[in-house]
Amino acid sequence: MSISKQIENAVKNSSMIRKMFEEGERRKKEFGADKVFDFSIGNPIFEPPPEVRQSLLKILQSDEKGTHRYMPNAGYPATRDFIASQLKDETSLSFTQTDIVMTVGAGGALNVIFRTLLDPGDEVVVFKPFFMEYNAYVANHNGKITPVPTTSDFLFDFAALENAFNKNVKAVLVNSPNNPTGVIYPAEDLTRLADLLEKKSVEYGHAITLISDEPYKNISYTDSVPSIFNHYKNSVVCTSYSKDLAIPGERIGYIAISPNHIDRNLVGEGAVIALRILGFVNAPAIWQRILPMVGKAHVDLEPYRKNRDLLLNHLTKIGFKCVKPEGAFYLFPKCPTDDDIQFVETARDMNLLLVPGSGFSAPGFFRIAYCFDTDMIKRSLPVFSELARKYKMIE
Amino acid sequence: MSISKQIENAVKNSSMIRKMFEEGERRKKEFGADKVFDFSIGNPIFEPPPEVRQSLLKILQSDEKGTHRYMPNAGYPATRDFIASQLKDETSLSFTQTDIVMTVGAGGALNVIFRTLLDPGDEVVVFKPFFMEYNAYVANHNGKITPVPTTSDFLFDFAALENAFNKNVKAVLVNSPNNPTGVIYPAEDLTRLADLLEKKSVEYGHAITLISDEPYKNISYTDSVPSIFNHYKNSVVCTSYSKDLAIPGERIGYIAISPNHIDRNLVGEGAVIALRILGFVNAPAIWQRILPMVGKAHVDLEPYRKNRDLLLNHLTKIGFKCVKPEGAFYLFPKCPTDDDIQFVETARDMNLLLVPGSGFSAPGFFRIAYCFDTDMIKRSLPVFSELARKYKMIE
Repeated sequence: MSISKQIENAVKNSSMIRKMFEEGERRKKEFGADKVFDFSIGNPIFEPPPEVRQSLLKILQSDEKGTHRYMPNAGYPATRDFIASQLKDETSLSFTQTDIVMTVGAGGALNVIFRTLLDPGDEVVVFKPFFMEYNAYVANHNGKITPVPTTSDFLFDFAALENAFNKNVKAVLVNSPNNPTGVIYPAEDLTRLADLLEKKSVEYGHAITLISDEPYKNISYTDSVPSIFNHYKNSVVCTSYSKDLAIPGERIGYIAISPNHIDRNLVGEGAVIALRILGFVNAPAIWQRILPMVGKAHVDLEPYRKNRDLLLNHLTKIGFKCVKPEGAFYLFPKCPTDDDIQFVETARDMNLLLVPGSGFSAPGFFRIAYCFDTDMIKRSLPVFSELARKYKMIE
Repeated sequence: MSISKQIENAVKNSSMIRKMFEEGERRKKEFGADKVFDFSIGNPIFEPPPEVRQSLLKILQSDEKGTHRYMPNAGYPATRDFIASQLKDETSLSFTQTDIVMTVGAGGALNVIFRTLLDPGDEVVVFKPFFMEYNAYVANHNGKITPVPTTSDFLFDFAALENAFNKNVKAVLVNSPNNPTGVIYPAEDLTRLADLLEKKSVEYGHAITLISDEPYKNISYTDSVPSIFNHYKNSVVCTSYSKDLAIPGERIGYIAISPNHIDRNLVGEGAVIALRILGFVNAPAIWQRILPMVGKAHVDLEPYRKNRDLLLNHLTKIGFKCVKPEGAFYLFPKCPTDDDIQFVETARDMNLLLVPGSGFSAPGFFRIAYCFDTDMIKRSLPVFSELARKYKMIE
């Protein structure tokens, strides 16, 4: 074989999900796209706020030269200044542009920060359930994921967390609002997490970095999402504009390093090197340039909230147990059976496309993405009822 | 320390180059930008062909929905069809869209292909001098670079090559037109290389993949650049539109897998997984979409040719030895001293910014990038003469 054994295995393992995806596509062709309810992928169907197109047009219609050239690897100073000043307003910490590294989305940001932080064998604590790509992101850089169970509300279980800790832990990764659960970690939980990290950093003799993957930060149905920057000094945020501006295909995000990080400059300089040597080189120029132009514009949250309420109310009514999501655009209900794969296959045969919890290290659950037309959601409700009937949850 | 030891070392080592860069910037401020001749970075000052802006405007002015959403990880089928059909015309091989994976530039493409191919300890043969980031690109994925000397014309030295070969070699990487030498490998050399790779693949019992990094393919001053696809079956091309369309900051490129590759589908599927798990996810959507629209448009080569001739004639006249570059936009002359670092520092003190050959594993040489205004090149010629005088090459 001419390819890597690890990738060869990944090709084999990805075939189950691909088969499900292909079966969904086949069904759309057979039954008509409007008869298949595809809740599988978090690819928002909403359009970017109008400021996005207006800013792009302004750039293209200007006579400025060199707008598509290389810039410093970390990104345009003006863009990084803009983000630093937003973070300063939000956290009252003294962010400057050197604390910001523009990246190719949040997935790119996470790979860059793991390349920056991890030595072989280092561990990264994650909380179950978690986005399955985290495994690969950490393994790419010779690290190891240490998954930790959470409470029945998907919040930190501090006993389990303390139990999982060991001297190889270099970083802890949180994702809030969470994919797949929609949970937002409350401020008091972050305070307790920070206390534990402080204690463990001293005990192990190295700083443990808290990384927050937060592309859903602005997709929140409560007042606001507490920032890790105000809770723990050795903090790094990885995020993207994919969801805020509904431009996931364009790959624009950033890494922000806390001005209080013990290795503030080293982490920043290291991240720039990692960005370069991983082949990203820099975030796409034109998308960097529009950010200060669009300012605080972001997608309308009302359709998301409406979709969440419609689905949550209906699912609860027909007997599904589900933690109420406070952010992101996912629901993560419990299956009426332990076998989530079988459950998802049964749903698929009814033209309802869901993702099994096993894909998030949480067998017995399933994920619904609700970033779609409210009309499609409404039409899907009777199908969910039919599914519940099949599992004898309702008559 | 909270960051990785490898990256910490990289931060330390990058400081020499950074110091040189910063000194250049300082000099531009002190003496005026027009008094400093910066030949250090291959960041073309030319603007993209007009078709680029026209196509972007057409996309923005259309009413099409969802143009910034996720698409299949490998890229838009229409874009990949367009590239496959171009490659089919060029090579007469039966490329289809499944042989094409859109990437975040050529740097992204190389990281994706190394992640796809390499098991820990696998070696990648490269030819001296070579782009220094290759070391990191391969090390990122636990592979090892095996640098092989070339002839005095920077062409393959087959005795040295055969000598360097061993059973850990999984891939051979060529870069033609070459950075830093401008050399284009002739067809007969590629035939001989292919014969050797066929022989060694049989001997070691695994297919050795030939990778061509060719972002300068269309920056050629001869008839055409021979394609590896027509010489060796287990071939993969990694390239970008950075130079063709003068959009290096936008990060758009692709991987093309030979339809004759023994693991054609596996390499393609593996590359899609590697693209996803390395956090690239997909190449920027808007830049994928313009490619079929701009068609064969590319930057005007005449300024490059003029710059090359001006510099090469003058440098030869004042005693520098330099292989005539047939492509790309670099010259790689021999220093009048073995100490290329000292030579480059001397030049810097005369406001002439060059890159030492040591950075390309070729001490005793220096690199000149000539993707700049011809006027700047003309004004720099007396400074090169002064430098030659300092080294007693001329009176």
